[in-house]
Amino acid sequence: MRLRNKPWAKEKIEQYPQYVVALPEQHKGKWSTVFEKNQPLHIEIGTGKGRFVTEMARANPEINYLGLELQQSVVVSALDRLIEAELPNVKLLNVNAVDLPKIFAKGEVERVYLNFSDPWPKTRHEKRRLTYKSFLNLYEEILPPQGEVHFKTDNQGLFEYSLTSFSAYGMLLKYISLDLHKSDFEGNIMTEYEEKFSEKGNRIYRCEVQFRK
Amino acid sequence: MRLRNKPWAKEKIEQYPQYVVALPEQHKGKWSTVFEKNQPLHIEIGTGKGRFVTEMARANPEINYLGLELQQSVVVSALDRLIEAELPNVKLLNVNAVDLPKIFAKGEVERVYLNFSDPWPKTRHEKRRLTYKSFLNLYEEILPPQGEVHFKTDNQGLFEYSLTSFSAYGMLLKYISLDLHKSDFEGNIMTEYEEKFSEKGNRIYRCEVQFRK
Repeated sequence: MRLRNKPWAKEKIEQYPQYVVALPEQHKGKWSTVFEKNQPLHIEIGTGKGRFVTEMARANPEINYLGLELQQSVVVSALDRLIEAELPNVKLLNVNAVDLPKIFAKGEVERVYLNFSDPWPKTRHEKRRLTYKSFLNLYEEILPPQGEVHFKTDNQGLFEYSLTSFSAYGMLLKYISLDLHKSDFEGNIMTEYEEKFSEKGNRIYRCEVQFRK
Repeated sequence: MRLRNKPWAKEKIEQYPQYVVALPEQHKGKWSTVFEKNQPLHIEIGTGKGRFVTEMARANPEINYLGLELQQSVVVSALDRLIEAELPNVKLLNVNAVDLPKIFAKGEVERVYLNFSDPWPKTRHEKRRLTYKSFLNLYEEILPPQGEVHFKTDNQGLFEYSLTSFSAYGMLLKYISLDLHKSDFEGNIMTEYEEKFSEKGNRIYRCEVQFRK
């Protein structure tokens, strides 16, 4: 994603603490109290401009959603969407995925979504991929036993890599689609990227994987 | 594959016992003595017209190959190829895959190849797919610990199914290609089907999976 320098981003984020939660580590173990309703929490890591997490929240009012995004200049775009949507069950965190266990207690997150993560195609950058084993270990730390990761990408190499990485970690591959938009999967909510890439004729790959313990 | 009735097939097969091994159950535990050289044994299940197994044998003289095919009328086509190739390290068996443990001792087969297996797309036919758990169990019975299955298909649904079936069985997905002919995989030997399907523009899917014990 092209990143514009937005010097006013920090200030704007601080104006909307009801949407971009400040000091997320202080809510570890009590995220249910941050939302209106005490209900399951799903997070998206690398939420970008926030369309997926917002539309998921609209479609699933019985779930709380948190969109995590490292780039402050991107968080403000997602924030604009949340301000407009006025939904009680979706918020943003301007955090790094490596800090997940500082932010969430074990089992506090019921599902992790990864959508169109940076493929980091060079082998020497493998450790930066969000499906590398060290990240899987972080997800395992915050999910309950048999917790699930739902992953979408249009990047063939990243999908091939990720399936082998999930398997090597011992995860169960529950569901795989090698052409999501031509599959019978219902209720797909497209990200901004997904719409753009699929319009070019690119296949979208999707899987649901589960920790075995 | 369209099956022609070939009433002379049985007779022809019996004329070439050096290529189509008769009474294979009698060789259980001593397959190395059936070939010229005592070397690793790889088998292809559903060998069809035999191009893959023959060309693999030609390219890899340090491996013994057995092509298994249930249909007698297809075995004779593969037999013609073997007669022409005159290779010491490839033979055929006219057998059903369900009989694998009657034919091979545990660990006697070092690798199993499945190429363009019948997809049996209807859910009620799942048990007939060669990547269904009962077949995986048969392969495990004849392979050594950490034995491998190498699988190719152009059928998207069968590949999706098979990856989840391997995973559910506890197998390790070591290698996955979602577009084999555009990948960096070297030494691919095409089956008759593979050439026909890929010429139509179909992708070829391939994976290498391993039993964990």
